[in-house]
Amino acid sequence: MNAPAPSPLTDLSRLCIHTATTKPWAIETAIERYAAAGVAGITVWRDTLEGRRPAKIGEQIRDHGLEAVSLCRGGFFPSLTAKGRQEAIDDNRRAIEQAAGIGAPLIVLVCGAALGQSLADSRQQIVDGIAAVLPDAEAAGIRLAIEPLHPMYADDRSAINTLAQAHTACDQLNHPLVGIAADVYHIWWDDDLPAQIAKAGELDRLFAFHICDWLTPTSHLLTDRGLMGEGCIDIPAIRAMVEATGFTGYNEVEIFSTRWWESDQDEFLSRIKDAYLQHS
Amino acid sequence: MNAPAPSPLTDLSRLCIHTATTKPWAIETAIERYAAAGVAGITVWRDTLEGRRPAKIGEQIRDHGLEAVSLCRGGFFPSLTAKGRQEAIDDNRRAIEQAAGIGAPLIVLVCGAALGQSLADSRQQIVDGIAAVLPDAEAAGIRLAIEPLHPMYADDRSAINTLAQAHTACDQLNHPLVGIAADVYHIWWDDDLPAQIAKAGELDRLFAFHICDWLTPTSHLLTDRGLMGEGCIDIPAIRAMVEATGFTGYNEVEIFSTRWWESDQDEFLSRIKDAYLQHS
Repeated sequence: MNAPAPSPLTDLSRLCIHTATTKPWAIETAIERYAAAGVAGITVWRDTLEGRRPAKIGEQIRDHGLEAVSLCRGGFFPSLTAKGRQEAIDDNRRAIEQAAGIGAPLIVLVCGAALGQSLADSRQQIVDGIAAVLPDAEAAGIRLAIEPLHPMYADDRSAINTLAQAHTACDQLNHPLVGIAADVYHIWWDDDLPAQIAKAGELDRLFAFHICDWLTPTSHLLTDRGLMGEGCIDIPAIRAMVEATGFTGYNEVEIFSTRWWESDQDEFLSRIKDAYLQHS
Repeated sequence: MNAPAPSPLTDLSRLCIHTATTKPWAIETAIERYAAAGVAGITVWRDTLEGRRPAKIGEQIRDHGLEAVSLCRGGFFPSLTAKGRQEAIDDNRRAIEQAAGIGAPLIVLVCGAALGQSLADSRQQIVDGIAAVLPDAEAAGIRLAIEPLHPMYADDRSAINTLAQAHTACDQLNHPLVGIAADVYHIWWDDDLPAQIAKAGELDRLFAFHICDWLTPTSHLLTDRGLMGEGCIDIPAIRAMVEATGFTGYNEVEIFSTRWWESDQDEFLSRIKDAYLQHS
C-alpha cells in the first residue's frame, strides 16, 4: 500500500487538548485558557470532575465556545474477582453518566489487565465488560473507543496492545457504538499501521486520534511523553493515514509529562499550539 | 493451537547465565562463581572482554567445565550515514572474531535503529548489515541470532520488535547461520507467540532462549528487569512452547537490574538458581 502524503495543519480548528496534558490546571482554568488560546476542543479527564456537577462543566465548556470531544477514561474491566469486574462495570456506567452530563459523545477506554491471569482472559473480560455497559451507552447515545495501549502497558493497564487486537474486540462486540481510539504513542512502532488504520476507517470505527511524541531516552514509562516534534514519531505520516480514511475529527493532544507539568502551563499551552502547527 | 504443557526444571544442566546479569563481577569472577554454583553455561558480554585475550577467556571457561553459549552482542547496524553503517559492519566482524576466540558458537544481535529515518529503512539496513558480515560468520562457523526487542526499544535499540519481523529478516537472508533469539521479556505480550515460536522451530532458526521477568511497576526501561517469579511473565508456558519445537538449548538468564546489581552477587546467584528451578 502506498503511504498517503501528509498535508500541513494551518489552523487550530481541529486542535483538542486533554485536561491531563495541563494537569496542574483545574477544569475551570483549563476551559478558560484553552478557549482564550483558540483551542477548539477539550477532552475531560474524570479526576477533574471531582466535586463538580458534570452538567455545569458541560455548560462552561459550551459557554466558552469549546467542544467536549471525549471523556477520559473508562475501562479497567479485568479483575481476578467477579466483585472487581462488577465494580468496574458500575464505574463505567458512572462514566457514561458523566459523559452525558458534560455533553461529550465519546468515552475513551483504557481497557485494563489483571495481573495473575492470562492476557487472553483479560481480553475476554474486557469484551464482557463493554457488552455489559452497552445498554447504558445506547440509552445515553455515548460511543465507546477502545484505545490499544503500547505493549509496555500489558502488565496492568491494558491487555489490548495493538490495533489488530482492538479490531478483534470490536468484531466480537459488533456494535456501532464501539470503535477505536488511535494514539500515536501506543501504535507508532507497529509495521501493520497502514492496514490497521485503513481497516478502522472502512468499518467506521476510528473514533478518536491522539497525538504526542516518544522521547529518546524515555525516563518514565507513564509520565515522560514528549511534545510533538520532541521525539521520533512521524506524526504527520500517521495523521495522513488517519485522514485518508475520511476521518475529520480532532487531533487530540494528550501528553503526560512530569517535565511539562512542572513548567509554566500558559507557556506550555503556547508551545503546544506551535508544535501542533509545525510538527503534527 | 493447543498450548503445550510446561514441565518443571529439575536440575541446572540447561542453566546459562549472561555475564551482564552479574555485572559487578569481572569475567574471571563470573566464570569461577558460575562454575562453583553448578551453572552449566555462560553467555559472555563483550564489555567483559576489555583488555583480555578472548582465547584465554575461552580456555578459562572450558577449564571450569562451563560451556560458552553465546557472545552478546552484535548488531546496531542502522545509521544515517554510510560511514556509520560501515563502522557497524566492522564492529560485528570483530564480534565474530571474539566469539570464535572464546569458542562461542553464536552471537546475539541487538539489531539497532537509527533515529531520523523510518523503521522500515532501519530494518533494511539491518538485513544489509547482516548480509555483509555473513561471509565472516561462515568462515568462523558462527551463528547469528536476531533478537526481537520489545516495542519500547523501537526508537534507538532495534527496529525489529516482534518475532514476526525477525522471521521476515531471516526469510530475506535465507541462510542457515541466521536465526532468532527469543527473550521472554521482549515477546511475552505478543498474542501470536505460539505460532511464531512454532514457526521458528519448523524452520530450524530458534537459536537461543532468554529468561527473566517483567516487574509491575517497571521503574526504568532498561535496567529494571525482574528475577524469574518476581513479575507477570508465564515463563514455564513460553518455555513449553520453545521446547515443543524440539529446542534443547540453554535457558539463559539475562537480567539487567540496578536493584540486583547493587545486591550481594553471591546471594543473587543463589537466588537465580532457586528462581530458575521454581519459576522458569
